[in-house]
Amino acid sequence: MSEPDIFYILGNKVRRDLLSHLTCTECYFSLLSNKVSVSSTAVSKHLKIMEREGLLKSYEKEGKFIGPVRKYYKITLSNTYVVTVTPNLFWYKGIRLEEKPNLRRFEINLENLDASPDTLQSMVINLLDANKELENLLEALRALESYRDMLVKNIKERYLEEIGDMTQLAILHYLLLYGEATIEDLSDRLNLKEREVIKKAEELSKFVPLIIKENIIKIDEEKLKKY
Amino acid sequence: MSEPDIFYILGNKVRRDLLSHLTCTECYFSLLSNKVSVSSTAVSKHLKIMEREGLLKSYEKEGKFIGPVRKYYKITLSNTYVVTVTPNLFWYKGIRLEEKPNLRRFEINLENLDASPDTLQSMVINLLDANKELENLLEALRALESYRDMLVKNIKERYLEEIGDMTQLAILHYLLLYGEATIEDLSDRLNLKEREVIKKAEELSKFVPLIIKENIIKIDEEKLKKY
Repeated sequence: MSEPDIFYILGNKVRRDLLSHLTCTECYFSLLSNKVSVSSTAVSKHLKIMEREGLLKSYEKEGKFIGPVRKYYKITLSNTYVVTVTPNLFWYKGIRLEEKPNLRRFEINLENLDASPDTLQSMVINLLDANKELENLLEALRALESYRDMLVKNIKERYLEEIGDMTQLAILHYLLLYGEATIEDLSDRLNLKEREVIKKAEELSKFVPLIIKENIIKIDEEKLKKY
Repeated sequence: MSEPDIFYILGNKVRRDLLSHLTCTECYFSLLSNKVSVSSTAVSKHLKIMEREGLLKSYEKEGKFIGPVRKYYKITLSNTYVVTVTPNLFWYKGIRLEEKPNLRRFEINLENLDASPDTLQSMVINLLDANKELENLLEALRALESYRDMLVKNIKERYLEEIGDMTQLAILHYLLLYGEATIEDLSDRLNLKEREVIKKAEELSKFVPLIIKENIIKIDEEKLKKY
């Protein structure tokens, strides 16, 4: 794995939580520090590690209106990683995402692979063929993740421009990536009381229709498609 | 990420090297310890961590003929992980591989996605559609990695049964996963002198034809297909 040692960075839960918050909205130090359950010294240490590894950049920016100058952080990488671990394979690959996703049709055809080749040579041939299909699949993954990245970026910008509420956006961001969430999940994640989560979700629902039922929140796809 | 904290495990280079060696052939402690460049105390610590996390199991086995009882290690997990990190997305998923790969045709169709949706609602709809194609793609990845795992397992067993040379097998294993290798790479990885690598590669080439040229070794696909 080249440049930032991504496994090392992801190997720590606090760093994973910080990355989650950073992808959701623009964050400065004390805002980030409030979102995770460790001391601000620890947060500072983890941010420094990620800066040193080349995954984050910090920059200074004044608050809106007459706020103080604050140190913000942003992720500087756009990659997808695939890792396989089995008793017979340990393999990983990083894929760089692209600005302009290649929105075409990809075919991953496994029909011609032999389910039980019987000589050493035919096993090797089939494995090399499978490797080619894997290359194909990774190109599809690159296109798809590049597209999802672009859309989420546009959704974030549009939401802040039109509605301007960062907490609603954080709920939307989570639902877009994970499909649904319990109120408790969101409450822990956003460091809000449950009733505040419900209130914010109801406000969000005016722009992106949600189903809020029995403790679970998800996007109402049917209603959304009628907009 | 459930059970074994895979990012934590992969976050250390010695552990990654140990996993590589373990997937290649059956390994006991001192064999593993010789393959990596840290003390046997450190190796022991890392193996314990991976056992504790549920990624490895140790078992005792007598050596061939009248060898001593030795402690062997094996990986107990068969998973593929996908991780995306961008300024807007931080997302990961683990996929459990299957015994019987589903060797069918998969279609990942990105043609119907809108390259530049212009309302917040249409952006969200397109993202949900992209998420569905991603589910599709992950199913293809599951099938492909399950198949590659099965084949590599069979190749390892067949090679040891028919030819019985672990070093030749280690070279083959590397070439199957990475396509080609320099002689220096293999020399570092297998802890052998360069001329020993060349000798072993030439022996391997009798069973799986190789091209050994200008310091690079790769599988000779054309010749292989004539077998």
